[in-house]
Amino acid sequence: MQHTYAKRVTHMENSAIRELLKLAEQPHIISFAGGLPAPELFPLSEIRESYAQVLGAGDPSVLQYGTTEGYLPLREEISDQMRSKGIPSEADNIFLTNGSQQGLDLIAKLFLDPGDVVLLQNPSYLGAIQTFRSYQANFATIPTNAAGIDDIALEVSIKLNRPKLIYLAPTYQNPTGTTLTIEERKAVLRVASKYGVPIIEDDPYGELRYEGSALPAIRSFSTEDEVIYLGTFSKTLAPGLRLGWIVAGKSLIAKLVVAKQGTDLHTSTLLQRATHYYLNHFDANQHIETIRQAYKVRRDLMLSELQENFSNQAIWTKPTGGMFIWLTLPEKYDTVNLLPSVLTGNVAYVPGAHFFTDEGSCSSMRLNFSNPTPLQIQQGIKLLATILTL
Amino acid sequence: MQHTYAKRVTHMENSAIRELLKLAEQPHIISFAGGLPAPELFPLSEIRESYAQVLGAGDPSVLQYGTTEGYLPLREEISDQMRSKGIPSEADNIFLTNGSQQGLDLIAKLFLDPGDVVLLQNPSYLGAIQTFRSYQANFATIPTNAAGIDDIALEVSIKLNRPKLIYLAPTYQNPTGTTLTIEERKAVLRVASKYGVPIIEDDPYGELRYEGSALPAIRSFSTEDEVIYLGTFSKTLAPGLRLGWIVAGKSLIAKLVVAKQGTDLHTSTLLQRATHYYLNHFDANQHIETIRQAYKVRRDLMLSELQENFSNQAIWTKPTGGMFIWLTLPEKYDTVNLLPSVLTGNVAYVPGAHFFTDEGSCSSMRLNFSNPTPLQIQQGIKLLATILTL
Repeated sequence: MQHTYAKRVTHMENSAIRELLKLAEQPHIISFAGGLPAPELFPLSEIRESYAQVLGAGDPSVLQYGTTEGYLPLREEISDQMRSKGIPSEADNIFLTNGSQQGLDLIAKLFLDPGDVVLLQNPSYLGAIQTFRSYQANFATIPTNAAGIDDIALEVSIKLNRPKLIYLAPTYQNPTGTTLTIEERKAVLRVASKYGVPIIEDDPYGELRYEGSALPAIRSFSTEDEVIYLGTFSKTLAPGLRLGWIVAGKSLIAKLVVAKQGTDLHTSTLLQRATHYYLNHFDANQHIETIRQAYKVRRDLMLSELQENFSNQAIWTKPTGGMFIWLTLPEKYDTVNLLPSVLTGNVAYVPGAHFFTDEGSCSSMRLNFSNPTPLQIQQGIKLLATILTL
Repeated sequence: MQHTYAKRVTHMENSAIRELLKLAEQPHIISFAGGLPAPELFPLSEIRESYAQVLGAGDPSVLQYGTTEGYLPLREEISDQMRSKGIPSEADNIFLTNGSQQGLDLIAKLFLDPGDVVLLQNPSYLGAIQTFRSYQANFATIPTNAAGIDDIALEVSIKLNRPKLIYLAPTYQNPTGTTLTIEERKAVLRVASKYGVPIIEDDPYGELRYEGSALPAIRSFSTEDEVIYLGTFSKTLAPGLRLGWIVAGKSLIAKLVVAKQGTDLHTSTLLQRATHYYLNHFDANQHIETIRQAYKVRRDLMLSELQENFSNQAIWTKPTGGMFIWLTLPEKYDTVNLLPSVLTGNVAYVPGAHFFTDEGSCSSMRLNFSNPTPLQIQQGIKLLATILTL
């Protein structure tokens, strides 16, 4: 039977990243394409112990339906962590989600009517663009100048486009790896607050810091719940668990409860209980430090390999954290067109065009350094340079 | 900050069931309100062993990102189970979800534009009504007569209302506990196929059969993927896991992949791997038989208590499976108005009005018999009759 779908379906498309991942998953390919953490660093035995303990305590409520906002002791724990990072928060400000992707979806569901404008960085996280598109959003770009975000142009853009939401990943952004300064954070908040536009502050990578000190979250400057902060355990614990959280004002949390009830009732009780056990019985900070050290080595290695193999013509970002480097080739190159031959040469990246809302021609690519091993980084960057005959 | 939400938010409301559950959760209340399985029957040690094995095998991919459609060996396993129930299926017809509530949400997202009509049984599962409402659906009722579904009136209704979807729970329906006959199943399919209207066949309770033989699913008669079948592990294993599945045509599965990518990327890898282990190493059928025997005792007890305490004036359904009895008081009673005094008397039910799309006055109530203990059923039904002074 030929189905007649809703209008929004014409705005939804298959995620290029995930289709690429399928190709790049072949074992002979050195993949810089995925956004995957290093699996060898997952705390398997600690997570195993956490599940064994909560399932072995003789309390069947770990397998029963739970509340939509999430398991209260875990919300309290996350709230404590948020406060320790300077984000004022109580348990009632915390809402559990199936990874922060679900946070994006629920917020989009609550805010976006067809044709509403989302103001975002260009390039931005592909998964966020995809979610906003599925609610038939239109897009406008947060204007920048040589000094970063241009707050005067931002104000003009807000007056012109009347956006419903601003979407930002201020720290070690996917795909570029760049970070907004304190001044930029405050400027965006000031302008957004003036016009009553909520900011989604997406922060999956903030803990993956390889140098410098942590910058305060935009929400830490927020006084009237203008900022909706998204956090996740995907990069610090494991993405296959699917657990994230939203920090927001209590009236928005109440709306999120209603939205999530209709979406999937609640996030897995067992997952929340096991994660709560993990956070209370193991040294999560020490584990994050282990990840930081390993990823810093890989970042440094990729940067030095790029310097050695690409310095003739390409430029690239030097991220101080996160999982990605953004490499830009001379303008004559089109990284979408180049990808098939690069894959044939057994390397993979994500073409930059996929991270732009207009998807024009683009000579940039996103390179991931968290998942490949140091040896693969050395071999892969050399191979990439050879294939591209720079 | 006062937020301006999307139009759909005015159609979303807090689930009466979940708000009631909070009140009914107080330990001194005998609750017939929830739709909860009996927690004392959860296979805690088997699930514990399953998680321990998949987390102890030294394979970190159990914690890594996974494919959106789900873990292939689990899809193969579910596909085998579906075939054994007469539903033709391959692994490519199976799509994993966070409980079947997410299946409803993703299907609604793919099919429903604002104002589209969903044709459904009245009363119907409250969570489905809530999901369809969040996509700004309108509703029409599947017409019935003394013999059940009236296929002539159904055809008239389809021509008149041009529904985008038909939603049905044919087996031990929530909230009434009633089951469609084979003739009714075939009639709905015939009319729906003639007009190209997809049927959502929601089957969370099919395994909870206390007498008679299993009736074939509507999808087992479907030849052109007209039927989208929803299954779940919530009632046969545990709801706190949040795992369900969709059986559908491959072209719809491809659309579901895109929809779920933007919604939450994929269902927990660890959950899918542990559930696959459970299904392959423990006797799931024996466990379901244990549940059946326990719930049959409770159903029989509730029916005999109703006979003893309510036979003067009330009528009620005699379900051959599932978790619910639908009790109808004389018309002068309004179960919404009566609920506060019933709660004060330490008993809880869900007022029937919440299961109707028009929410008019109603003298019916939904009574759950799976979660209360036999003693609570005996005491609670007597108490309810006393409070209602029948």
